[in-house]
Formats: sequence, structure tokens, C-alpha cells
Amino acid sequence: MIRSEICQRLGLRYPIFQGGMAWIAGAELAAAVSEAGGLGILSAVAPEGSLREQIRRVRQLTSKPFGVNIMLMHPSAEEASALVVEEKVPVVTTGAGLAAGQMEAWNQAGIAVIPVVASVAMARRAQRAGAAAVIAEGQESGGHIGELTTMAIVPQVCDAVDIPVVAAGGIADGRGAAAAFLLGASAIQLGTRFLSARECGVHENYKQMILDAQDISTVATGRRFGGNTCRCLKNAFSRDFLKQEYAPEATAESVAELGGGALRKAAIEGDLREGCFLAGQISGLVKEIQPAADIIEEIFAEAEALLKGASQWVK
Amino acid sequence: MIRSEICQRLGLRYPIFQGGMAWIAGAELAAAVSEAGGLGILSAVAPEGSLREQIRRVRQLTSKPFGVNIMLMHPSAEEASALVVEEKVPVVTTGAGLAAGQMEAWNQAGIAVIPVVASVAMARRAQRAGAAAVIAEGQESGGHIGELTTMAIVPQVCDAVDIPVVAAGGIADGRGAAAAFLLGASAIQLGTRFLSARECGVHENYKQMILDAQDISTVATGRRFGGNTCRCLKNAFSRDFLKQEYAPEATAESVAELGGGALRKAAIEGDLREGCFLAGQISGLVKEIQPAADIIEEIFAEAEALLKGASQWVK
Repeated sequence: MIRSEICQRLGLRYPIFQGGMAWIAGAELAAAVSEAGGLGILSAVAPEGSLREQIRRVRQLTSKPFGVNIMLMHPSAEEASALVVEEKVPVVTTGAGLAAGQMEAWNQAGIAVIPVVASVAMARRAQRAGAAAVIAEGQESGGHIGELTTMAIVPQVCDAVDIPVVAAGGIADGRGAAAAFLLGASAIQLGTRFLSARECGVHENYKQMILDAQDISTVATGRRFGGNTCRCLKNAFSRDFLKQEYAPEATAESVAELGGGALRKAAIEGDLREGCFLAGQISGLVKEIQPAADIIEEIFAEAEALLKGASQWVK
Repeated sequence: MIRSEICQRLGLRYPIFQGGMAWIAGAELAAAVSEAGGLGILSAVAPEGSLREQIRRVRQLTSKPFGVNIMLMHPSAEEASALVVEEKVPVVTTGAGLAAGQMEAWNQAGIAVIPVVASVAMARRAQRAGAAAVIAEGQESGGHIGELTTMAIVPQVCDAVDIPVVAAGGIADGRGAAAAFLLGASAIQLGTRFLSARECGVHENYKQMILDAQDISTVATGRRFGGNTCRCLKNAFSRDFLKQEYAPEATAESVAELGGGALRKAAIEGDLREGCFLAGQISGLVKEIQPAADIIEEIFAEAEALLKGASQWVK
């Protein structure tokens, strides 16, 4: 059993978070992960129904702790920020910002706040603002990304803060998990691998794209003007996006208007042409649809064997 | 003592390669790394004198095995390809391609050929062509890079080939080394950390830039049109390059002409404005000028302690 400080702090059996993917991370998935001993996380951009309904549904399905991810750039952020207090959600993770102004109110409500950070400076600001931990996320992740990779950001953030560091990006099996712990992480966060969970309600076309993906099946859009870089699977949507992004006449404003509704088209409708299928570079390792509990147990059995056997490297 | 199959195969004490950085990796650095038990690697784009002189100088300084890195896109490649056979160099690493056509001749000359690869498909082709191992390099590396990161490429390449895999990118200390071994690597390759070696002949301004660098001090140029993406430290050169690369009127051809002589200006002249200072995202961890032997011993002492203690994670 791999346990770390963060397990005690958050009441987890396994130091693993399920990424709160917009339009994807609903109650069934989050509850299955939490019930299995990890931290299930709802997206405030709920795939169906309201966030309040999703929170209540998780509580029907499990008595274990769970979280809500609030994407601070999204219109849903303001309502979600109040709702997590009203509903006394145990953990909030934030994306695309720190919500430093709200951290005190959340902390006073007993919420552990864990921002996703893309740099050392952001991790330091999160600690100063009262974060319980930070998620240091590499750009191999699916979805919104920074520029640092997991190998580079995790040890540098660990050196810079005293709070626990959760490693995210490029982890889909026990090898990645064990590597993350030796880099200094106290826990791991996985998105792509949980896309393939049986309890994940995403359209089956999306799951099939993950299972079919290889190492070089993803691409990053939005790098030209920055600020909203996203990693997704290569398809007609991503090709069209990049063509428009890199067209001579493109501007930051014209690019910001691209892709509206494309996440919904991927996750809910499974639209292979017009959908934006967010996924990480580690998609190539995901080969099977499994219950979330099996995913977690398989990862930790492999990681435990690697960590127990690691001393054999030293002769 | 961490030993792996690759140590026996190549005659190394430590499973560590020093990246064969163009204009930087000369005889003094390569010899110091090899003498300390790692694999020192000369760049065929020699920082001073001819490659033949550099090879002979290494042999004056050490009797241990060493390598030559041949950057296949560079004009020096053809001459270097013949020279390594004439001089019976023990190891050749290749960059920006596989040199599959030359692999047989090199193998017949007793040379272990170890290509740098950026994807699973390239690793498979290298194995088929007769490579002794592959270097799976993540885009957190300095210099010419692909798109996959170290966390993503190493396990996927390990699953795809039977030959040993050397992990490169984002490794500068024992944490990165230990993580790489648990990802499945048999050895590690470091460039940025060895830039700070006392025996590295690069201009002192270059070393100072590495020591001063933080986590977000690097940027990747050449992404717009692809084919020649490079990670370097942010400075006037990189800002000008990116401005021209992303200008509406830029073309693949106009971008290919940018930056001529800039590597030399950085490495030899220390030109802070017009030099292109290749460096990895892990620069922020490099804080000291040390002899190459101390760098290697420090990294492996830390990695050994982490690997020996890894079983403590499992309770």
C-alpha cells in the first residue's frame, strides 16, 4: 500500500486524483474513483444536469471524499465558486489560475484548495494564498497546458514549496506513478487513463479514439498566440484549427473564436470531425476499457512492485 | 552502484551519457565524463580543431570508451560518418535521423550505433536497422527536439523495442535519474547539467546563463513550420527569432534561414544578444560549476539512495 501525507490529509486510500475534465468528469466517474479509494473530481462544466445535481449524485453513490474542478476562465466559475461552499465540497482544484481571492473563503469553509500550476512562481503564489497542495502539470497532459513538462516541473516545484505536490501529465500506469513519486510527488493525477474507465460517461467514439491512439496521436493547438494552448487528438478539427491558427491573417482574437462548442461535440456527441478530443501524449498506453477501481488497483500494484524492487538496481 | 545491461555492453561504470552538443561537446568534457565512468560524447560539429584531432585528444586523456554524435542534417555528417570508422570510435549517436543506410557499415566496424529517437515508430526503425540501443529524448531537452516528452516517450518506446532505451530530457539530478530507471530506461543522457561542468569549454557567459536560469527560462523556436524545432534560453536572439517566425509573411524557407551562426556565437563568443543558447527546461536545477566526475557521482549517489529507499513508499 503506497500512502503519503496527502492520503491522511484528504482521507484517501490511494494517492491518486482523477482529473476534473470539462464535459467529461461527471458523478458516476468521480464516485467510482472515490469509492475505490482515490479522489474523484467533478468538472464544474458538468457533462449533464447542474453541478449541484452532480455533487448530490456523487454523495448518493459514495460516502468518500471527492472534489470539484473549477476552470477559472469558464463562465461557470463564479456560480461554482459559491456552490462548493454551500455544498461543503471537501476538495476544490482550480484550472487556469489560482483564485487567490477566493482561497480564504474556501479555506474557511473547510475546503482543501489544490490549484493546477504550470510553473514554480505559480506554485509559490498558491502556497502563499493558502493552498493545501498544488498539482504540477506537464504539457504532455490533455486539455489546457503550459510549456513545462512533468519531468521538469515536478522536481522544481517540489524544491520551491513545502506543501505536497501532485504530479500530472504523462502518467497512465505504474511506471509513471513510481517515477512521479521518486521525482518528489506525493500523489498523481490522471485524466486520459480515466477517460477509458467504464464509469466515464463520455461518448463511446471518444473512448475508441483513446484506445486507438499511438504516441504521436496528439497535437497542441493555440501555441501561436499563447494563453489557451490545448492538447488534443489529431483529427479534422485539430487540422482545421491549426490551419486557421497559422494562417498569415490570423490574430489572437480570431483564434480565440475558434473551436466554440467543440469540447461538447467530442464528449457528448462523439463528433469525429468537428469535436475537439482532449487527450494526453500517454494515450498510446491506454488499451482497455476497465472499471475505475481496476485501473487504480492495477496502477498501484505495478507501482508498488517497482518501488519494492527498486533497490535491485543498486548492486 | 547502479549498473544496467548497457554498462556491460559499452564498458561503463555508470549508465550515463553526456549529450554530444554541437559547438560545445569537445575532447576535455567527453574525456572527463568517460574517465569518470560515464560515456563522454564528442560532437561532430567540433567546438575547436577538427573532429579527428578531438578524437585523438580524447584518447590521450582517457583509455575509456567514448562516442561521437553525428547530427545528420549538418554538412559535417558525411565526413564524420567515414571518420568514425577510420578512427574506430566505440559508439556513435545520431541526431535528426537514423542513418539506417550507414548502420551496417558502422556495425561491421564494431561501432555501437545509438540513434536519438522522437517516437515509437522511429525507435522501431532504429532497432530493425541494427541499433545497439536508442536514446528516447523528450522535448524538455535543449537543442533540436520533437513533440513527445520524456514521461510519455520512455515507457512507450520501452514497450516497443527489445534493445536498451536511454532516457534523455529533463534529467539533471538523482531524482530524474531514478525516475527514468523506473520508467524503464537502462541509462540516462544529460546535456544541460554537463554544460556546467568545469571541463566544458563553452564560453563562461553560457555557463552563467544556465546557472541563472529558472524553470520558465527556455522557449522552443521553429514550431510553426516544424522540422527544426529547438529549445533555447530566452534572450534577444530567441525573441527576434520568434517575432520573425510568427510574422504573417514568414514562410518555412524564410524561417530556415534564421539563426545562421547563432550556436557558434553562443558557445564560442558568449554573445548574449545574438547567440542561441540551447538549454533544457531542467536548467533551473543547475546551480553550480563542478568537475564532471563530481556531477556524475552526485547524481548516482542521490539516485541510489532514492532507489534503495523506494520500498519505504510501500507500507
